[in-house]
Amino acid sequence: MLYDLIIIGGGPAGITAGIYAARKKIKTLLITKEWGGQITKAIDIENWPGTKKISGMDLMKNMTEHLKEFEIEIKENKEIIDLDKKGDNFILNDGEQTYEGKSVIIATGKIPRTLNISGEEEFRGRGVSVCSTCDAPIFKDKNVAVIGGGNSGFNVALDVIKYAKKVYILEFFEEMKGDAISKDKLAQSGIVEFVTNVSVKEIKGTKFVESLIYEDRKTGEDTEIKIDGVFISVGMEAKAGFTAKLVELNKIGEIVIDKDNNTKTPGLFAAGDITDIKYEQIVIACGEGSKAVLAVMDYLKERS
Amino acid sequence: MLYDLIIIGGGPAGITAGIYAARKKIKTLLITKEWGGQITKAIDIENWPGTKKISGMDLMKNMTEHLKEFEIEIKENKEIIDLDKKGDNFILNDGEQTYEGKSVIIATGKIPRTLNISGEEEFRGRGVSVCSTCDAPIFKDKNVAVIGGGNSGFNVALDVIKYAKKVYILEFFEEMKGDAISKDKLAQSGIVEFVTNVSVKEIKGTKFVESLIYEDRKTGEDTEIKIDGVFISVGMEAKAGFTAKLVELNKIGEIVIDKDNNTKTPGLFAAGDITDIKYEQIVIACGEGSKAVLAVMDYLKERS
Repeated sequence: MLYDLIIIGGGPAGITAGIYAARKKIKTLLITKEWGGQITKAIDIENWPGTKKISGMDLMKNMTEHLKEFEIEIKENKEIIDLDKKGDNFILNDGEQTYEGKSVIIATGKIPRTLNISGEEEFRGRGVSVCSTCDAPIFKDKNVAVIGGGNSGFNVALDVIKYAKKVYILEFFEEMKGDAISKDKLAQSGIVEFVTNVSVKEIKGTKFVESLIYEDRKTGEDTEIKIDGVFISVGMEAKAGFTAKLVELNKIGEIVIDKDNNTKTPGLFAAGDITDIKYEQIVIACGEGSKAVLAVMDYLKERS
Repeated sequence: MLYDLIIIGGGPAGITAGIYAARKKIKTLLITKEWGGQITKAIDIENWPGTKKISGMDLMKNMTEHLKEFEIEIKENKEIIDLDKKGDNFILNDGEQTYEGKSVIIATGKIPRTLNISGEEEFRGRGVSVCSTCDAPIFKDKNVAVIGGGNSGFNVALDVIKYAKKVYILEFFEEMKGDAISKDKLAQSGIVEFVTNVSVKEIKGTKFVESLIYEDRKTGEDTEIKIDGVFISVGMEAKAGFTAKLVELNKIGEIVIDKDNNTKTPGLFAAGDITDIKYEQIVIACGEGSKAVLAVMDYLKERS
């Protein structure tokens, strides 16, 4: 079976690409390990144009249902581990079988970065969490630290303040990076303490998390705070190694594309958070997914 | 009054930029001649991710209402006719007053192209239309020509087939360019005749449109078809002349940007159909609007 297009990834970029490809009636396969990518972790999305507020889970459900309206072949729970060329076509391997396509869109997104500090793995599920949607209610009337002061950390904190007694937001850089509007909401809660310019060194506990130690990056001084829970929200990581034979990766492992979503290999496109487009938002990923399919259409036309 | 950001345009790119800027709480002014841009002419949008079907008017209404939820200054019914620099800032002129901003996003989109043939202006409103949402019902049981076989022409035709007896779709190039899925729907109606590789030369009539003459681009032969209405849908035109002092324009008058929406002038960004991004879709324009604001945030941070 030779596909016109194989889309790898089932987040906003991949799903949008799927919708566009299906409407173009090209023979398309969408392969994904899971649905939704980072969206599913967002509690309230307030910047999806035209929708004042929607949960990440609902937006993702809407998108996947929309995709499945169309005739498109889908393989779920599959992770592509190798991507190579064979003649003019691309061969993808998921460890069990191979797939062949005239063109490919890589839209595998990013995965949450870890801190690699003592206690992080040890206390996972015992106070350490990466999913506030899942775990915020556990910390009713407790003290919680959110590590990371960007929008994802702020979103986590916005969920946690509904339950917790006190929330520390710890940011590595000198300034919180999240939206001012979210920061205001957090400040208004009266229970959030913003701590900037610190590096978290250790998560401590016995059976469960009991405290956390951070270093002031200016003075070098350590501080230990008593907490019952830690949400880690320190950004995302691109895992594009499986594409390395055919694309250029930048120094943080993202796939380098031009503004029409071309990689350095003709017929191989990328879209969404896996790319070196600097800004990562649902609506940006969707736009990029759409753009990539239209570039694929031009490529297929040239090729045939 | 010095704004942090002035957004010019109230289509999908401009509105999304407005939502993002407002959420960042920077001092923002959005100036627009009208709301919605090209969206408002779409009857059924079926590729807005997560929404199986929505009218252009409804999507636009949702987007403008979403924007107006936030604190953002808006000037409607204003067209910027000049854009220049004054020191580090930008000065915009609408013919009546000037506005000053530290940064600007140009998102003025495109306007429908005209054919410049005999009868086109003469019979406007008397059989010649550019808006099927407005005028399709007029042609109940009539013969209609749609000029242009891209997606916008197809969308027009999809509206017209609900009323007309017979619909010709006339395309300049050798192939229809619109989505296959739409083409199938049109073909299934049984009343659509696809005519490719033709150049429309004249629209004729007395009080109202009565016929149209097209030339076969291969044979040079003229054909006259009896029709009661003509929808012109031959693409869009960028009108970015007012920015010419500060940006590079490509040969079709679009603003050249890099993949972070920078023009050649620092602090001056562009997003959506006015740019040289090859593909034009609502979701692409929205993604670009979001990306431009995040680039503005980085610019303002560097500058201050």
